[in-house]
Amino acid sequence: MVTGFTSYNGGGMNGTSKMMDFLEEPLPGVGTYEDFNTIDWVREKSRDRDRHREITSRSKESTWALIHSVSDAFSGWLLMLFIGLLAGSLAGLIDISAHWMTDLKEGVCLAGFWFNHEHCCWKSNTTFTDRDKCPEWMSWSQLIIGHGEGFAPYACGSGIPEIKTILSGFIIRGYLGKWTLIIKTITLVLAVSSGLSLGKEGPLVHVACCCGNILCHLFTKYRKNEAKRREVLSAAAAAGVSVAFGAPIGGVLFSLEEVSYYFPLKTLWRSFFAALVAAFTLRSINPFGNSRLVLFYVEFHMPWHLLELVPFILLGIFGGLWGAFFIRSNIAWCRRRKTTKLGKYPVLEVFVVTAITAILAFPNEYTRMSTSELISELFNDCGILDSSKLCEYVNDFNSTKGDDLPDRAAGPGVYTAMWQLALALIMKVFITIFTFGMKVPSGLFIPSMAVGAIAGRLLGVAMEQLAFYHHDWIIFSGWCSQGADCITPGLYAMVGAAACLGGVTRMTVSLVVIMFELTGGLEYIVPLMAAAMTSKWVADAIGREGIYDAHIRLNGYPFLEAKEEFSHKTLAMDVMRPRRNDPPLTVITQDSMTVEDIETIINETTYSGYPVVVSRESQRLVGFVLRRDLIISIENARKKQDGIVSTSIIYFTDHSPPLPPSSPSMLKLRSILDLSPFTVTDQTPMEIVVDIFRKLGLRQCLVTHNGKLLGIITKKDVLKHIAQLANQDPDSILFN
Amino acid sequence: MVTGFTSYNGGGMNGTSKMMDFLEEPLPGVGTYEDFNTIDWVREKSRDRDRHREITSRSKESTWALIHSVSDAFSGWLLMLFIGLLAGSLAGLIDISAHWMTDLKEGVCLAGFWFNHEHCCWKSNTTFTDRDKCPEWMSWSQLIIGHGEGFAPYACGSGIPEIKTILSGFIIRGYLGKWTLIIKTITLVLAVSSGLSLGKEGPLVHVACCCGNILCHLFTKYRKNEAKRREVLSAAAAAGVSVAFGAPIGGVLFSLEEVSYYFPLKTLWRSFFAALVAAFTLRSINPFGNSRLVLFYVEFHMPWHLLELVPFILLGIFGGLWGAFFIRSNIAWCRRRKTTKLGKYPVLEVFVVTAITAILAFPNEYTRMSTSELISELFNDCGILDSSKLCEYVNDFNSTKGDDLPDRAAGPGVYTAMWQLALALIMKVFITIFTFGMKVPSGLFIPSMAVGAIAGRLLGVAMEQLAFYHHDWIIFSGWCSQGADCITPGLYAMVGAAACLGGVTRMTVSLVVIMFELTGGLEYIVPLMAAAMTSKWVADAIGREGIYDAHIRLNGYPFLEAKEEFSHKTLAMDVMRPRRNDPPLTVITQDSMTVEDIETIINETTYSGYPVVVSRESQRLVGFVLRRDLIISIENARKKQDGIVSTSIIYFTDHSPPLPPSSPSMLKLRSILDLSPFTVTDQTPMEIVVDIFRKLGLRQCLVTHNGKLLGIITKKDVLKHIAQLANQDPDSILFN
Repeated sequence: MVTGFTSYNGGGMNGTSKMMDFLEEPLPGVGTYEDFNTIDWVREKSRDRDRHREITSRSKESTWALIHSVSDAFSGWLLMLFIGLLAGSLAGLIDISAHWMTDLKEGVCLAGFWFNHEHCCWKSNTTFTDRDKCPEWMSWSQLIIGHGEGFAPYACGSGIPEIKTILSGFIIRGYLGKWTLIIKTITLVLAVSSGLSLGKEGPLVHVACCCGNILCHLFTKYRKNEAKRREVLSAAAAAGVSVAFGAPIGGVLFSLEEVSYYFPLKTLWRSFFAALVAAFTLRSINPFGNSRLVLFYVEFHMPWHLLELVPFILLGIFGGLWGAFFIRSNIAWCRRRKTTKLGKYPVLEVFVVTAITAILAFPNEYTRMSTSELISELFNDCGILDSSKLCEYVNDFNSTKGDDLPDRAAGPGVYTAMWQLALALIMKVFITIFTFGMKVPSGLFIPSMAVGAIAGRLLGVAMEQLAFYHHDWIIFSGWCSQGADCITPGLYAMVGAAACLGGVTRMTVSLVVIMFELTGGLEYIVPLMAAAMTSKWVADAIGREGIYDAHIRLNGYPFLEAKEEFSHKTLAMDVMRPRRNDPPLTVITQDSMTVEDIETIINETTYSGYPVVVSRESQRLVGFVLRRDLIISIENARKKQDGIVSTSIIYFTDHSPPLPPSSPSMLKLRSILDLSPFTVTDQTPMEIVVDIFRKLGLRQCLVTHNGKLLGIITKKDVLKHIAQLANQDPDSILFN
Repeated sequence: MVTGFTSYNGGGMNGTSKMMDFLEEPLPGVGTYEDFNTIDWVREKSRDRDRHREITSRSKESTWALIHSVSDAFSGWLLMLFIGLLAGSLAGLIDISAHWMTDLKEGVCLAGFWFNHEHCCWKSNTTFTDRDKCPEWMSWSQLIIGHGEGFAPYACGSGIPEIKTILSGFIIRGYLGKWTLIIKTITLVLAVSSGLSLGKEGPLVHVACCCGNILCHLFTKYRKNEAKRREVLSAAAAAGVSVAFGAPIGGVLFSLEEVSYYFPLKTLWRSFFAALVAAFTLRSINPFGNSRLVLFYVEFHMPWHLLELVPFILLGIFGGLWGAFFIRSNIAWCRRRKTTKLGKYPVLEVFVVTAITAILAFPNEYTRMSTSELISELFNDCGILDSSKLCEYVNDFNSTKGDDLPDRAAGPGVYTAMWQLALALIMKVFITIFTFGMKVPSGLFIPSMAVGAIAGRLLGVAMEQLAFYHHDWIIFSGWCSQGADCITPGLYAMVGAAACLGGVTRMTVSLVVIMFELTGGLEYIVPLMAAAMTSKWVADAIGREGIYDAHIRLNGYPFLEAKEEFSHKTLAMDVMRPRRNDPPLTVITQDSMTVEDIETIINETTYSGYPVVVSRESQRLVGFVLRRDLIISIENARKKQDGIVSTSIIYFTDHSPPLPPSSPSMLKLRSILDLSPFTVTDQTPMEIVVDIFRKLGLRQCLVTHNGKLLGIITKKDVLKHIAQLANQDPDSILFN
């Protein structure tokens, strides 16, 4: 809990002067964390409250302090404004650059670098539209993504598993730094324009979080406090989704549901603000020239019939099955990459996958176009003026009125398109498994949605033709007479996209709201919800974890899932260390150990903290002291304080007894002692312990029995215990 | 924490058989709560987990048990479906009945009951449209609302403060019962059709929560567990707002932001489902005949200009000021009602206020119409075909194209309407203060929105005329040329409504989302957000509490606000009882007290629980036992167990020592002992203690110092402490 270096050491209300000391941080390093460690939420929040109190109390003293206090209160909003502006601008920049790259497509011809693009591709293909997809032609983008990775290992992947872990209180230095931002932005542009089976949506969340983290440095309040910074990052994640899908409300709910760990209501409001600013910045940049934020925005006008829920639920089942299949295969492949030699050649892998993608994608019109365009075409409802192959129906102009066309027989174009889409589906399903997790910035949203949209469109067209040819069937007779427009294949595509995205990520409310914001009609929430619900149930029945959680576990990050209920009947005594036959717990006594004793303990053990007790016999708990604070304080005392030798006694008590004149001077360390460590009894069920760890964000908790200290449970112990009960390897949890 | 009457008494894994005991509840009453008491969230959640575990483990035994397990898992969804259906139907019923009542308006003539309506009103008014508003004519509805209260004291008021309190873990029996539901529904219809300055929106939340609570009785899972039931109520509140405003997403966010206390993500998804079902049920009933869920749905098509943010922010300031003023005045009036004789004549009060409202409302067209209609008219943008007085512009048909009219000079009708609206504003402002809190079901949303909408429309028309006559001014020159349609007064009305509602309730995200769902355009979120943000800041600067929190405090409910940060520097030792000079804490020893000793303690003290220690000397904490459980167990043992007399020793230990043959048989009560009570040290800052109480939902927490039990902090102590620090009367907290 609150360590004593805040002003609780006196135990009283004589705050300000001591707090000043704290703010000036006399011992640099005390109260900070090492890389790949978990933060103590309670301590961080207490520090922020101290800071806030100090500013409030000083604000009455002078006008300048009052201005400081007001500006401090508004700094959060200012920061959100900056994040929104920056995230929106970067998203616009990425869209425009990716477009430009796709148009420009200046690259190198592998058959001979002097050949120009058309020349190089002469042999493979002569049609104009397909010319830049020949396998011999390697665009710059494909080349550079392979090399960009050398600069920033963190710029690859979707980033969401790591961001979830960071938001839960883990420290990965540099993961959200400026170099990551720069490399990620550049490689994202290249990756998106390269035609790989990936999207920019997931990485945009990472980019937005980088913006948030970098902008935090402008304000002391957020720079110095890990908990406050995570609030900002939650909001930045919302802004990222907001620009990725043009869905500010969906973005906030995504951050709340999927990404964030600690999400107070204040953050909800601020996230919403950041998400809105980002969306409007992007809209004013207008990257697609249609004043929409995304390529695949769509507006449907046709109502749907209750019976259509059956195909929608079928799509949900498909989405769930695909999600579960994808997660299993992708994790198996990523594990293979981690454990075999494959992982040593990331650049080669990118090249090979890109080349295979290019070769496989080339013959098929629907895989050749960018995935966003594909989704846009699949979502689209056929109007009179649509020239797409998907809209090549047998036209009967006599019955046509207005923009809505009645149901028609499919023309040859539609049948061709169906075959091509079916092939595209198979290809997308397999290539995405190998693409996600590769060392390129790779979003999962767009490929998942593409798989679902293809499946949905196929089913939609099938339903449409069924209704057209058999409108006298009993199931259609009520609502689908001849010449009526009763089935919208584009809606099926959208429902399929939602189902597949839901199956992979296990999003629920945020998924439906994002899709709702894409369509703009409240009416279509019901189909979307039916599909998302079915998809989640089916996928959950096969495997409980979403793709992000699976990747977190694969990487061994110390992430304590807030959604999963802990359902076993173990007690704190089963989890705590020391175990039954281990040597007793390493403790420090409050007034009888020398500097040397403690240094020995520090050298012989690797624990990150030690309980302090009244005496070894009584085992009555006084407090908890962190290893890092102890090392820094002793080092500092040995350097700066006279008479501190190895035989000096360290006192953690409030008042120290008078010493005999001959003895060496003592070292008082009560200021680094946490006087309010969390304790539970040994009979406490683990479900409650897990709840406490989650809700309060603890790093460790002490275990007592009838008032005597028995042991300790750390977050890592909890995670190992959960892994063990799930029949997984407890040593897969790697970090502290 | 988990009390021992669950199966932790053995401390081991030998669960099922003991759990069966628990499920069958051998001692009825153990583990239940008395009225006006606070529940223990941790215990309730543990019980549910035990139940769930038992069903899961049994599901492997037989097919029947498997079906039971699956149906148990889906019962939550089924319940949500029922709640949605019922809440939607009731909302439709209320709308239709209120409409019918307003049309029918058969009532009684006060001047002589034999006069018919027209006859009765002859003297006051001769025009046809105004006939049923003469003060002599008292409609049935006005009569009955005064009397309906006799049946159900809980049916009055908005209900939201009480629902917030119940959701935070307080028990008010009957508040959500079937009688409340019936009376509230009937009186709501009457109150809405009576023309009082109140809306149906707040009470609809109460109605939906009643539905939720009643439907809980269908499922054991929810009937028997107070924590699970509160999850359902949170979802029901979302359904209530969903039907009140036709805003399912806004409803869920309202429940999350404003009403709920414990809101796990699972509940979010289910709330969304319930809210959607309710909205679609209402839509299929189609009470307004326009396939919209609310009367004041509106679609704007005009963009707004950045400079318009200035008037929008002005409306925000107005809304904030009004909110703060309203809360202060309304609370002062309600306090007066509570403390003076006024409160003894609720029926008379309703009559007087209704009569005054009728008299004052009568001469003014805009107060005479129902408030929803007024809002609808104010939100509406003037088209060519609008015949409303607000749309009487000087028409210039030459420049008119399409449905959007350019800015025009206001005609005489508009000027008249402005005066009438200004008078209506003043009347609404004052009459609402006296109406809210009266003994009728009274929503606050609609009157607040009406005040804001009037102010907004006034400002909007003023801006419009300013822009029309001075389009060469520098502020207008960039965007408002002559003949262009650049200002939408309806949008101003909507922004004003949002600002006033925000000022009164302090909603943020949910307010903006509800308004967004009312307009359907993402574009207007920015003005709404600007106004809502300004309004909240202004109102918060004057007084921190929203109207619901203010009413909770007025009524002395034990509600621990989750949004407010606890910002004082007190420690647990400053709050715990016993205080410095009090007699020591009443404790029970684990193996040395007789039945008589404990009965004496129970009779002499009124505490709801007692800590159990190893011995009085050591003060080492063993567990915590609840007064209620103790009384029931001792009574039961005296009746049913042989040899239990006053000198029998009560053992809370695991193993009891062999007794000498002459001594009376002992009473083992370890099964009712909570072996894992929460403890904090005396040096723990209160901000952390408050956080623990909030996040874990505790009732009490024990305080230790160096492993010795020192005192106890209950939720009531925490609330009293907070009240004291805020310079309020700590004795205003009434319940446990």
